Amino acid sequence: MIRISLLGAGRIGVIHALNAKANLNVDLRYIADPREEAARDLAEKVGAKVVDVNAAINADDVDAVIIATSTNTHAELSHAALNAGKAVFCEKPIDLDINSASGVAEHVQQSGLPYFVAFNRRFDPSFAALQRGLSDLGKLEQLVITSRDPSPPPVEYIKVSGGLFRDMTIHDFDMALWLLNEPLRDVHAIGSCQVDPAIGQAGDIDTATITLTTVSGAQCVILNSRRAAYGYDQRVEAFGARGMLQAHNIKPTQLHRFGAEGENSDRLEDFFLQRYAAAYQAEMAAFVQALVTQSPMPVSVQDGVNALKLANAAYASLEQGKPVGF
Amino acid sequence: MIRISLLGAGRIGVIHALNAKANLNVDLRYIADPREEAARDLAEKVGAKVVDVNAAINADDVDAVIIATSTNTHAELSHAALNAGKAVFCEKPIDLDINSASGVAEHVQQSGLPYFVAFNRRFDPSFAALQRGLSDLGKLEQLVITSRDPSPPPVEYIKVSGGLFRDMTIHDFDMALWLLNEPLRDVHAIGSCQVDPAIGQAGDIDTATITLTTVSGAQCVILNSRRAAYGYDQRVEAFGARGMLQAHNIKPTQLHRFGAEGENSDRLEDFFLQRYAAAYQAEMAAFVQALVTQSPMPVSVQDGVNALKLANAAYASLEQGKPVGF
Amino acid sequence: MIRISLLGAGRIGVIHALNAKANLNVDLRYIADPREEAARDLAEKVGAKVVDVNAAINADDVDAVIIATSTNTHAELSHAALNAGKAVFCEKPIDLDINSASGVAEHVQQSGLPYFVAFNRRFDPSFAALQRGLSDLGKLEQLVITSRDPSPPPVEYIKVSGGLFRDMTIHDFDMALWLLNEPLRDVHAIGSCQVDPAIGQAGDIDTATITLTTVSGAQCVILNSRRAAYGYDQRVEAFGARGMLQAHNIKPTQLHRFGAEGENSDRLEDFFLQRYAAAYQAEMAAFVQALVTQSPMPVSVQDGVNALKLANAAYASLEQGKPVGF
Amino acid sequence: MIRISLLGAGRIGVIHALNAKANLNVDLRYIADPREEAARDLAEKVGAKVVDVNAAINADDVDAVIIATSTNTHAELSHAALNAGKAVFCEKPIDLDINSASGVAEHVQQSGLPYFVAFNRRFDPSFAALQRGLSDLGKLEQLVITSRDPSPPPVEYIKVSGGLFRDMTIHDFDMALWLLNEPLRDVHAIGSCQVDPAIGQAGDIDTATITLTTVSGAQCVILNSRRAAYGYDQRVEAFGARGMLQAHNIKPTQLHRFGAEGENSDRLEDFFLQRYAAAYQAEMAAFVQALVTQSPMPVSVQDGVNALKLANAAYASLEQGKPVGF
Repeated sequence: MIRISLLGAGRIGVIHALNAKANLNVDLRYIADPREEAARDLAEKVGAKVVDVNAAINADDVDAVIIATSTNTHAELSHAALNAGKAVFCEKPIDLDINSASGVAEHVQQSGLPYFVAFNRRFDPSFAALQRGLSDLGKLEQLVITSRDPSPPPVEYIKVSGGLFRDMTIHDFDMALWLLNEPLRDVHAIGSCQVDPAIGQAGDIDTATITLTTVSGAQCVILNSRRAAYGYDQRVEAFGARGMLQAHNIKPTQLHRFGAEGENSDRLEDFFLQRYAAAYQAEMAAFVQALVTQSPMPVSVQDGVNALKLANAAYASLEQGKPVGF
Repeated sequence: MIRISLLGAGRIGVIHALNAKANLNVDLRYIADPREEAARDLAEKVGAKVVDVNAAINADDVDAVIIATSTNTHAELSHAALNAGKAVFCEKPIDLDINSASGVAEHVQQSGLPYFVAFNRRFDPSFAALQRGLSDLGKLEQLVITSRDPSPPPVEYIKVSGGLFRDMTIHDFDMALWLLNEPLRDVHAIGSCQVDPAIGQAGDIDTATITLTTVSGAQCVILNSRRAAYGYDQRVEAFGARGMLQAHNIKPTQLHRFGAEGENSDRLEDFFLQRYAAAYQAEMAAFVQALVTQSPMPVSVQDGVNALKLANAAYASLEQGKPVGF
Repeated sequence: MIRISLLGAGRIGVIHALNAKANLNVDLRYIADPREEAARDLAEKVGAKVVDVNAAINADDVDAVIIATSTNTHAELSHAALNAGKAVFCEKPIDLDINSASGVAEHVQQSGLPYFVAFNRRFDPSFAALQRGLSDLGKLEQLVITSRDPSPPPVEYIKVSGGLFRDMTIHDFDMALWLLNEPLRDVHAIGSCQVDPAIGQAGDIDTATITLTTVSGAQCVILNSRRAAYGYDQRVEAFGARGMLQAHNIKPTQLHRFGAEGENSDRLEDFFLQRYAAAYQAEMAAFVQALVTQSPMPVSVQDGVNALKLANAAYASLEQGKPVGF
Repeated sequence: MIRISLLGAGRIGVIHALNAKANLNVDLRYIADPREEAARDLAEKVGAKVVDVNAAINADDVDAVIIATSTNTHAELSHAALNAGKAVFCEKPIDLDINSASGVAEHVQQSGLPYFVAFNRRFDPSFAALQRGLSDLGKLEQLVITSRDPSPPPVEYIKVSGGLFRDMTIHDFDMALWLLNEPLRDVHAIGSCQVDPAIGQAGDIDTATITLTTVSGAQCVILNSRRAAYGYDQRVEAFGARGMLQAHNIKPTQLHRFGAEGENSDRLEDFFLQRYAAAYQAEMAAFVQALVTQSPMPVSVQDGVNALKLANAAYASLEQGKPVGF
């Protein structure tokens, strides 16, 4: 039985709490959140106790800490949890600053403690099946990752988000590194403001096309947009010597309507909470399973650092208007 | 080179003329149609000569006759062509009357001449692939044939059509007999007027569900309607010990539109001319190929008689309100 | 907060317990099962208390009883729960005997207590969307329900199952009655043993085609088999004046593999636990919601009786070899 | 009636001859090919006369010339046909050399004669529907063109092909320019040899990812490979403010096989002759229609020049390892 404290009772904290609760190997003991009411509501729901953040981290009867707070606190809380000798499940990203993220990675290495970066997409059943299928595909030659949010977040959020590449594409960078599974040679990022000029005024872009090349010559394209009128568009396509693998989108129902206007089916799932419900469950299970069996974490702190490095390289390319080495 | 006369320059005659013309083993020599202008237009298009029906049938320099005239002339023209020693390609049905159709079958047998009943659906690439796939499916256990016209013909046509089962279902009866490939035990037909009361007043039905059982216990359902707002609906589904085969519909394009209202794609193909274009080509090729190689006709006169018998049995069942033996 | 006792800690009891537990309006208090270990395991998992069946039914601090025991106990436990003044959630069927089932229905009516028959398929997101979509389809003209289990149960189970129509088709009968939403005129059942002769020796069939007609002339076909090598096949197709609605199957992943052999995607979901996971959740939510809001149950005891009556009529038709009135 | 000479009786010449023959507004009079037997065979099939190339071009009774010879003769024959005052239908590319192609464009402009570059893909029913659909999509933000040949041509062909970008991508460049419909800002090409080292030894690449940006900030990706084990992969995906358009691939049949291994359907169409059969028909019809109605050609000589310029820019980018302006 893994005993866990949860830091953060917001939208994603609720998801992790429910999945932890449903896991028969987890005893979710403590929840901490400065917004006391949120903490209390969630604690009641899952039978946990509300405590302050220090108590949650340092409790003697706790083995692991889930960090689901706002991004700017991830590094500090990671250090605190590691200092307390706890295993860590940290929402992505570790930090928006590469030095800070690397500092956490060093701390993890010194401590020898398990640290899991919650790149949930790796645990999506279709993407996971695609990854397993790569071994039958022959040499991976091209990879296309399509990732479009249904609509942009408020500009206030954009301003503190770290920018498109560190906030949104970071997931796709992790997917690319995971699937390509070989060192990159260079990165080329193209970006523009196609969705909302206010995003541009905030110094960010909302539409991007990023190409990665590997040392063996494989080519990867990431397509990003902050807008998709038809729902949350999340696909992967891999091309190899023996064929192609496609992981398609998911829709709420399998209903098809045929009328004079043709065939119609649902919009895609609204957004990440619906689309990745199974992935969130599976990542919690994977984290707990690794602790129970004392196996290496399926996503390491270094994976979190690498995705952030790639985001930084993409920004360098965008600014210079040309590919940069990686 | 097979030398051919075409009787009938209407909608279906034009199709057969163009497919005959495109076939490198065919010399389409003569066209006959009482509507002289239609005959002349078509003849010009395909480089044939307009003659009267007797000349077309009895020409010395002709090996085969295509009968694409109105149904009530099929039997008489079949006899004439057989008397002239010609091979025959006859549009379905041979006749609406079973005695007359059987008379043609007898004549064919006595003459030893090749006779092809144009059940075009057997030559649809998807249905043909399904039929070939049956050998890998294990014992055929259930079969579902969905066949819905986009909209009902004029009531005037309904009145002389021979009724739904002899006019429209006859195709599905042939498909069922072809795919089930074993003797039937009984037939049960349910029918009603759901589309247009005028069809009922003309003594016919417009919506039907027919179940067939075979001696081995296999079960077949035919679903018919004179209406499908979404286009011409033509599907087959076969279930066997090792799985299921589905032959899906065809759409004019492969365009998929994703918007706030979900995913939309085309209506089905409008009607038989579009949907079965490839089938019409292939049936002509099959007829000519059988003549060239002196092989048995892939659809025999007996197939035409059997489908009509089944239509008659379905009417008996409909009248008696219970299954009838076959 | 609805306080609940669960009777039965088998496969389906576990599902209901987990869904009840996850429902924020439910307090799952007691679990009873003669197999004590099963009861204890489940109780521990969901934080309930193990008691004997009488205590579970008659506990003062309980509002509703979930009956998830073997079929032959449903009626007796229903009466006991009604006598104790509890609302009832009863797994289908109420009983294999129509008199016994009708007796429960009478008891429910006299008591005025809420009684829910767990026809889970009505709560499948795709089937529910299809049902809602019927209002835009115009007059419902034809309906096709395809329902095939992946593989037959042991013959020992077959012998006590009540037969295909009462055990398996009962779900489809409920779906048909729910979707057709008008009185039936007659029922015609065709059945045979295509899958396993041992099923026939046990006096049952394993493959069936049932046609229903309504008073307005609408036609419904139910296709059943105890075998589907490709997974659990559960589909509905509705035809109306304005088009067609299709509820398709569900697959474990959205991965498509393209290779020299063509395009391949997953088998269908294995069986009901996977396929109807969302439906089981939704039916529990619907039951609880009806209790909380004191609304009529979305599936009534009469629905359970009607489906059983239809199963009996289907058996009568099968024996007589012709349609029977309903 | 448009009277036509065809130059070249090879694979693509045969296609154009058959489509011209089937067009009721065309009189295909002359065929020229140095390989006399090929010319004779084709001429016999379509009822044309074999002549030498000069006679074919200069015949008084000819309005238009179809150039379907090897690429290195296109420019010279174009000049000759223009000098003879004929309209021209020229297979792509006009020439591998931009100066030569531009020379043809100048000649066309001076002559005022109709000149059609046969970019067949614009006439594919699905791509054409996608292009028409762009007007409802809002601002076009991203565009993805996937174009993969089933297998590489012989290395001997590669050597004289002009290279991947001028031989294969040229089609995609035309599609991109047509669909983006605004000036480009820059081009970035990534390429490698993933399929066959012999192609690299011949100085070419076999796998490429090309990104284009427009002056408004729209982004386009072209994915190319000389290999697709699953058939000829030809797709377009367009993203705009109001949604997404996808033009999917085409398969030989609509048969779906469901078994223990899941669902299987056909490979994609083999190659361009099958996949673009409808497009070849439609482009011939469009060419003839423009002549008959004296309208501007739907694909102009300038379109041919532009695609070649873009291919050259892609080579410049590939060599310099960075984006180049366009």
